[in-house]
Amino acid sequence: MIDKLVEKIRKTGAPIEVGLDPMLSYVPDHIREKAFKEYGETLEGAAEAIWQFNKGIVDAVCDLIPAVKPQIAMYEQFGIPGIQAFKKTLDYCHEKGLLVIGDIKRGDIGSTSGAYATGHLGKAQVGSQLIAGFDEDFITINPYMGTDSVQPFIDVAVPEKKGMFILTKTSNPSSGEFQDRLIDGRPLYEWVAEKVVEWGSQYVGSCGYSYVGAVVGATYPEMGKTLRRLMPKTYILVPGYGAQGAKGSDLVNYFNEDGLGAIVNSSRGIIAAWKKEEYAAFGAEGYADASRQAVLDMIEDIQTGAGLR
Amino acid sequence: MIDKLVEKIRKTGAPIEVGLDPMLSYVPDHIREKAFKEYGETLEGAAEAIWQFNKGIVDAVCDLIPAVKPQIAMYEQFGIPGIQAFKKTLDYCHEKGLLVIGDIKRGDIGSTSGAYATGHLGKAQVGSQLIAGFDEDFITINPYMGTDSVQPFIDVAVPEKKGMFILTKTSNPSSGEFQDRLIDGRPLYEWVAEKVVEWGSQYVGSCGYSYVGAVVGATYPEMGKTLRRLMPKTYILVPGYGAQGAKGSDLVNYFNEDGLGAIVNSSRGIIAAWKKEEYAAFGAEGYADASRQAVLDMIEDIQTGAGLR
Repeated sequence: MIDKLVEKIRKTGAPIEVGLDPMLSYVPDHIREKAFKEYGETLEGAAEAIWQFNKGIVDAVCDLIPAVKPQIAMYEQFGIPGIQAFKKTLDYCHEKGLLVIGDIKRGDIGSTSGAYATGHLGKAQVGSQLIAGFDEDFITINPYMGTDSVQPFIDVAVPEKKGMFILTKTSNPSSGEFQDRLIDGRPLYEWVAEKVVEWGSQYVGSCGYSYVGAVVGATYPEMGKTLRRLMPKTYILVPGYGAQGAKGSDLVNYFNEDGLGAIVNSSRGIIAAWKKEEYAAFGAEGYADASRQAVLDMIEDIQTGAGLR
Repeated sequence: MIDKLVEKIRKTGAPIEVGLDPMLSYVPDHIREKAFKEYGETLEGAAEAIWQFNKGIVDAVCDLIPAVKPQIAMYEQFGIPGIQAFKKTLDYCHEKGLLVIGDIKRGDIGSTSGAYATGHLGKAQVGSQLIAGFDEDFITINPYMGTDSVQPFIDVAVPEKKGMFILTKTSNPSSGEFQDRLIDGRPLYEWVAEKVVEWGSQYVGSCGYSYVGAVVGATYPEMGKTLRRLMPKTYILVPGYGAQGAKGSDLVNYFNEDGLGAIVNSSRGIIAAWKKEEYAAFGAEGYADASRQAVLDMIEDIQTGAGLR
């Protein structure tokens, strides 16, 4: 899958992914009202609204980008109907040729990580059948519990040729509270990075990058520079662009000299573009076109800012 | 909810919770076959099997214990039907008067943690309605991303009078890889413990314990001793008993002098008791009675071993 991701990034010239993280407040009235009319003000109504909203955006941007990253929390907030909308979105993105990075940040003791891996990357054995539960192409993983909590994901991902991104240095303001603390003179995130390299070193695609990637926030460009150097064959998923504050020129450190090695996420900045002054002319009815324009602007900003051309 | 938990622990004399973490291999043939006959060898069939399996155990043990801890990964492995079985189990446990600790180990940037909190502890705003998605009483949380990833859970939990347990020192063999590393001479898990105390200090129930608890594995009793001392008002959820290796006498350090302050989890040791030589006489048909006997034995072992009487 890492090979497919790199191929798609090369083809589109867009080292970006759209974070399909819908809040009801991003959904234009006409979509929300139609969903509530059909299903009432229920979890089913909310789920229908975010699914229709997503579908419009996916239709509008799918030829421009290699991948999407739905954040499962935004679906879990609406209970089971929400998770059904997550699965529907995921399947639809696959239909449209997009790779799907499930932003699930799971991680647990071995047997439990194994169950998460089965559900999200692999197939469950049910009697004589092997059945995929969610079937993302990549997922995100939390490393706090160490190697035996990560290995089960690798064990499932490798035969499926799927991949993962391990939280290393996250984009949020408090990320330094534990991640930046010095251990033998080096911050915790560097020790995690070292493990990410170790975990992924055996599983390198023909593109030269490992199945095991890392998450490094765009909001810490100096740390990004160090981490890029420490993890040369690791694909870096970069959150924090746009609404969280980072811009194209902050991203120059995250790419390798081959112009590869990073994929930048934007969520709100793309999917709620129609609510920003900059794209207001599209109106609520044109929300998906606003997202398309925001993607085009983001590609331009990153290609220029990060010096990719 | 921490007050209700303490009240129930006092009433039952059982500072334990049953981990409802079903694997299909734990489910007796007669239940699995009936479910597959009705739904086929499908995710729905698997979900029906684990739900019926859970129901039998809950019926058999609900008068003995204060709480259950379903591990959501075991349900996510079967996709959406699996998560429906999670919700059905959760609701049924509530009907039977049990508290439910959702072992979900979530944690993310602020807005995303907020969405998880809404889905699992709070209520989503859908038009004019406020609707609960999953509605656990407590959940588990991963602290790797720091304060702003934890605070949204507190913000939702406090008005709902619900609670949480933050991973501090986990029970798995690799937990020391990052958690034990020394920062200014003290292991990371102690720095996390300090934050757990800080996060919970304002939210203490009338029982004297905070809404914000900690997870500390039974498999590291010396660390448990230190952490008990560092977090006197923090309820400790203790995994690692039974199948992971710890026994009653390892738990003495986790309780305060009031005989409270800890709740010990056992999953496999209880729900798959019928497969152990010790309880084989119950047979597959008597699997739930085997679980009941295993709960009684666990209560005895902990009360004696940890010196609670």
